[in-house]
Amino acid sequence: MRAELLTIGNEILIGQITNTNVVWMAQQLNLIGVNVIHMSSVADDSQAILLALDNAKSRADIVLITGGLGPTKDDITKKTLCEYFGTNLILNEDVLKDVTNFFLKRNREVTEINRKQAEVPKGCMVLRNKQGTAPGMWIEKDGVIFISMPGVPYEMQGIMTDLVLPEIKKRFKLPFIYHKTILTQGIGESILSELISDWEDNLTKMNLSLAYLPAPGMVSLRISSLGENEDALRNTIDAEVEKVKPIIEKYIYGYEEYGTEQPKMEEILGQLLSEKGLKLALAESCTGGYISHLITSVPGSSAYFNGCIVPYHNEFKNSLLKVNFAVFEQHGAVSEACVTAMVKEVQNVFNADVAIAVSGIAGPGGATADKPVGSTWIAVAYGDRVVQKYFVFGDNRQRNIQMAAMNAMNMLRKLILGVEE
Amino acid sequence: MRAELLTIGNEILIGQITNTNVVWMAQQLNLIGVNVIHMSSVADDSQAILLALDNAKSRADIVLITGGLGPTKDDITKKTLCEYFGTNLILNEDVLKDVTNFFLKRNREVTEINRKQAEVPKGCMVLRNKQGTAPGMWIEKDGVIFISMPGVPYEMQGIMTDLVLPEIKKRFKLPFIYHKTILTQGIGESILSELISDWEDNLTKMNLSLAYLPAPGMVSLRISSLGENEDALRNTIDAEVEKVKPIIEKYIYGYEEYGTEQPKMEEILGQLLSEKGLKLALAESCTGGYISHLITSVPGSSAYFNGCIVPYHNEFKNSLLKVNFAVFEQHGAVSEACVTAMVKEVQNVFNADVAIAVSGIAGPGGATADKPVGSTWIAVAYGDRVVQKYFVFGDNRQRNIQMAAMNAMNMLRKLILGVEE
Repeated sequence: MRAELLTIGNEILIGQITNTNVVWMAQQLNLIGVNVIHMSSVADDSQAILLALDNAKSRADIVLITGGLGPTKDDITKKTLCEYFGTNLILNEDVLKDVTNFFLKRNREVTEINRKQAEVPKGCMVLRNKQGTAPGMWIEKDGVIFISMPGVPYEMQGIMTDLVLPEIKKRFKLPFIYHKTILTQGIGESILSELISDWEDNLTKMNLSLAYLPAPGMVSLRISSLGENEDALRNTIDAEVEKVKPIIEKYIYGYEEYGTEQPKMEEILGQLLSEKGLKLALAESCTGGYISHLITSVPGSSAYFNGCIVPYHNEFKNSLLKVNFAVFEQHGAVSEACVTAMVKEVQNVFNADVAIAVSGIAGPGGATADKPVGSTWIAVAYGDRVVQKYFVFGDNRQRNIQMAAMNAMNMLRKLILGVEE
Repeated sequence: MRAELLTIGNEILIGQITNTNVVWMAQQLNLIGVNVIHMSSVADDSQAILLALDNAKSRADIVLITGGLGPTKDDITKKTLCEYFGTNLILNEDVLKDVTNFFLKRNREVTEINRKQAEVPKGCMVLRNKQGTAPGMWIEKDGVIFISMPGVPYEMQGIMTDLVLPEIKKRFKLPFIYHKTILTQGIGESILSELISDWEDNLTKMNLSLAYLPAPGMVSLRISSLGENEDALRNTIDAEVEKVKPIIEKYIYGYEEYGTEQPKMEEILGQLLSEKGLKLALAESCTGGYISHLITSVPGSSAYFNGCIVPYHNEFKNSLLKVNFAVFEQHGAVSEACVTAMVKEVQNVFNADVAIAVSGIAGPGGATADKPVGSTWIAVAYGDRVVQKYFVFGDNRQRNIQMAAMNAMNMLRKLILGVEE
């Protein structure tokens, strides 16, 4: 089953936004055994769209279109689809109800422009949008399926997850794809690759493929294959995971099981805190609230998260977390002594069982003779036990913040589980 | 002058990597007046590549190809280009020198595989690669220019900057492109579009184009045009911006000037705080540290940011920010009384001139009979003046957090500037 992804929007063609929709869509389609063979982006221009639709039809079984469904004048996808399918727009009462409810709930009036969002090409199957006002549409022509969705990522994702992917799975017999991803932290891609080189050579012989997926502070290893026999595939790959485990065990912080989202470090830590009934507190200096943001981005985190203090200057590390001014004078704010005092006091302030404290130089300013940009001290506490570690990350501010966050959460996870650093 | 960007590589089609090359290339081409009309991505598959080349040739004057030039077996771009142009590979002595020097410099031996990188299609103009071993190639067929470059971003960027862009500018007389983007907050795309409908109609008559670019909590309006006379274009668009200003003034929080990055809300607020010499403190409940993260993601933010408290439970809103327990009993934590108390005390705790406090129900849990998911109270303070506002965002946790952050920062910006809500 061959799919083509078509993105419509001038903002893509002038390089104003990065097309992350196709990345997510390709991943999801791949997971259910659909082969993405082509991706195209065209402007909000009817001739360009018509040509792209025709080209897509000639090579794909299913064409997934995003963008150009907004209520404003520059969005012409719906009109152009009608032209392509030789049909016209009609008002859909269900969608009109959805649109009306959407605005009612937000105490806003439904305008004439909003009403137009309830118009869809005659004969299409409507894919209702729970997150926004522009509905998705499923239309067939000469045996090829065309699906048009809004370009707003979470609206498109909602329609794909709730409606499109289940419908594709229902209608077509797809090959079975299995993959399992090993999540590692604290080791770089090239050293990891050297460690597992022999194991990796053997994978190729078995027709399994391995992908290294690096992200700031972590590397995921995805082993995948496709075939007819689900159990055989699953057993083969699971056995390979067991073989590589002893070689890299101390770097593994989790796994992505087939068909689930890759668990994030904050979700893995959150689940561990839930299971153990532990309450978490944070004291963040250089990470500036980023760990707190990650932890609280997980639904239900209030069950284990008590709070965070971001003391962005020494005087507040002193007033709020009782770090003695002598510590700054003798060791500086980026020091073992400072993060140790911070982690203990934040545990106390928030009456927490476990805590994290971070102090570092995110950059680009702030470096000293002995502490370059990227220097970071992290302390984690579990009851009375405290573990501290010093890192020098790099030159990039955003990356330093991300690396510190990943390492800090993993240090706490390991301390709770009693895993050696 | 119409350009098409063609990306070759399986890793794009399975969603393993995000195609950032096309973003950079589109920006650069746009800046010199080249109109990117189409982007395609295909697999490392000769039939798919041949078809894509032919489709591109039918609509573009110049086709920029990236990827598939590596030394390994899965990279077949060079071979396929030869097939398309009816030519064959020959060894280029200059490139062989480059490749040999590249490895010598790194104390590595030149392997047979590396030598193959010095082979190029006969008749092409070689674009030497200073950053790596795979050269770029410039080939013409039937009046269309094809340029093939490696997919490694900094190698491609080097070849584009040093060779491709100057050559295009030399060979063609290109129109001048100008755009300006108005950044708005606090108004949805559809209401905005109704407000400026007459103005927008007039733009079309003037051959100017308008794009609505929505992101959580904000909508950008981009006005653009191309022509021969740089000053005339600039004056025309600047005049149109002045015309629309009075209609939507209270929603505008900034502008993106031509050729610069779009400023983020946290950068605009940060600059304002710097200019006025004001110190900022935050009290974040439902946003969980996200505003603090945004503020501290800006380099140099320590000059105006004092710190943040995330009191994720009522007891800590009481112990750290002195919110009286009676407030929770009478009004709940998501209330005007609660955020007012929070904003005043956090100002005090951090000895700050200005402050933001947020308390809401990010969801999916936590809704009550009168407060649905998305309900959010925000208070901002500037000295003794406090402004509070109630919002109901939506159902999506991440989006609610983003919307609250954008609105909160803009409320503070407006309070400081004395702009009416």
